[in-house]
Amino acid sequence: MLPIITISREFGSGGHSIAEKVAKVLNIPIYDSSIVEKVAKESGYAKTFIEDKGEYSSIFSKWFASSAISPSNINTPQDQIFTFQSEILLDYMRQGPCIIVGRCADYICEINDIPALNVFIHANVDARKERIMKRFNMEDEATVEKLLSKKDKGRTAYYRYYTDREWGDASNYELSLDSSRLGDDLCAEIIAHAAQVMAK
Amino acid sequence: MLPIITISREFGSGGHSIAEKVAKVLNIPIYDSSIVEKVAKESGYAKTFIEDKGEYSSIFSKWFASSAISPSNINTPQDQIFTFQSEILLDYMRQGPCIIVGRCADYICEINDIPALNVFIHANVDARKERIMKRFNMEDEATVEKLLSKKDKGRTAYYRYYTDREWGDASNYELSLDSSRLGDDLCAEIIAHAAQVMAK
Repeated sequence: MLPIITISREFGSGGHSIAEKVAKVLNIPIYDSSIVEKVAKESGYAKTFIEDKGEYSSIFSKWFASSAISPSNINTPQDQIFTFQSEILLDYMRQGPCIIVGRCADYICEINDIPALNVFIHANVDARKERIMKRFNMEDEATVEKLLSKKDKGRTAYYRYYTDREWGDASNYELSLDSSRLGDDLCAEIIAHAAQVMAK
Repeated sequence: MLPIITISREFGSGGHSIAEKVAKVLNIPIYDSSIVEKVAKESGYAKTFIEDKGEYSSIFSKWFASSAISPSNINTPQDQIFTFQSEILLDYMRQGPCIIVGRCADYICEINDIPALNVFIHANVDARKERIMKRFNMEDEATVEKLLSKKDKGRTAYYRYYTDREWGDASNYELSLDSSRLGDDLCAEIIAHAAQVMAK
């Protein structure tokens, strides 16, 4: 059976479109923003709130991460969303092979002993800027740079807070790929092929 | 034309044997311990001294890295070996596509604008221990653990000292692969295929 595939990605690295290509080749479902709808329905939080808190650190988590107070004792809205999100992801994973984009899915697989192919997609800053400018029709380079930096910091803090691991450390993933050097198609091909070999 | 392939590897991850498989598939030369002989001949330092100083930090570099004295002003034996080694690697690279194992070759390519496919091979600690015990016919697990830790620290410090980058940070490499999960054959296949696609 194919493993669960988790795809963590730097903002602007094309991780999402690579995940879509892999899903198409392997003919398995992909869960990404669809998760937000489900979390909203089950948790009662607004979609926009979840979009922000479901992958990026809030002021709460940053404060907890640097404070002596154990986060396990205090349940912030972000913690509640993380719990809802994790349960929903586990539900999807138990239904069969699928691809999950972001949301610490690699860590959720590990602590639940779910065999997974964990992938990290990264890219150089110029390629990420170019992709974001195209995608969001942005023109001001300084604004894009600020956005990149904010997203990177938010994901790093979120990942560190919930997993106690370092975002982008190769040892957390079976495959880490530079989409700006390899190209989206080759990245997708490598991931799909690795999943097929692991299934044998 | 095929790119230069640099393979950085955790001790005991099988990076060297993966590199050999790739060299065979692509039919290109591989440079590893053979570099030591050449550095010895050109620098006058003993082979055993180079083996230790050509990839692992010495007490000198650790001290410089943590001191306020600029290392550029003082040329330690390790610095001299690094310079000899870099020149020899550049010579090999200029002769055509090849594979270079270790020795900060990824960084040497970058600062010399040499197009390269930079690979990092890692593995979980259990797999690394098992491989080392088999390879060196070692039986005492505690000794193997100490050896692993010493080698990891040495390579991390050496890489940081000469490149100002973090060892094992995915962003330094086009491909980072977990040999303990993917297996040596699949790792070699992915690297060879990526090099072939990049050559097109």
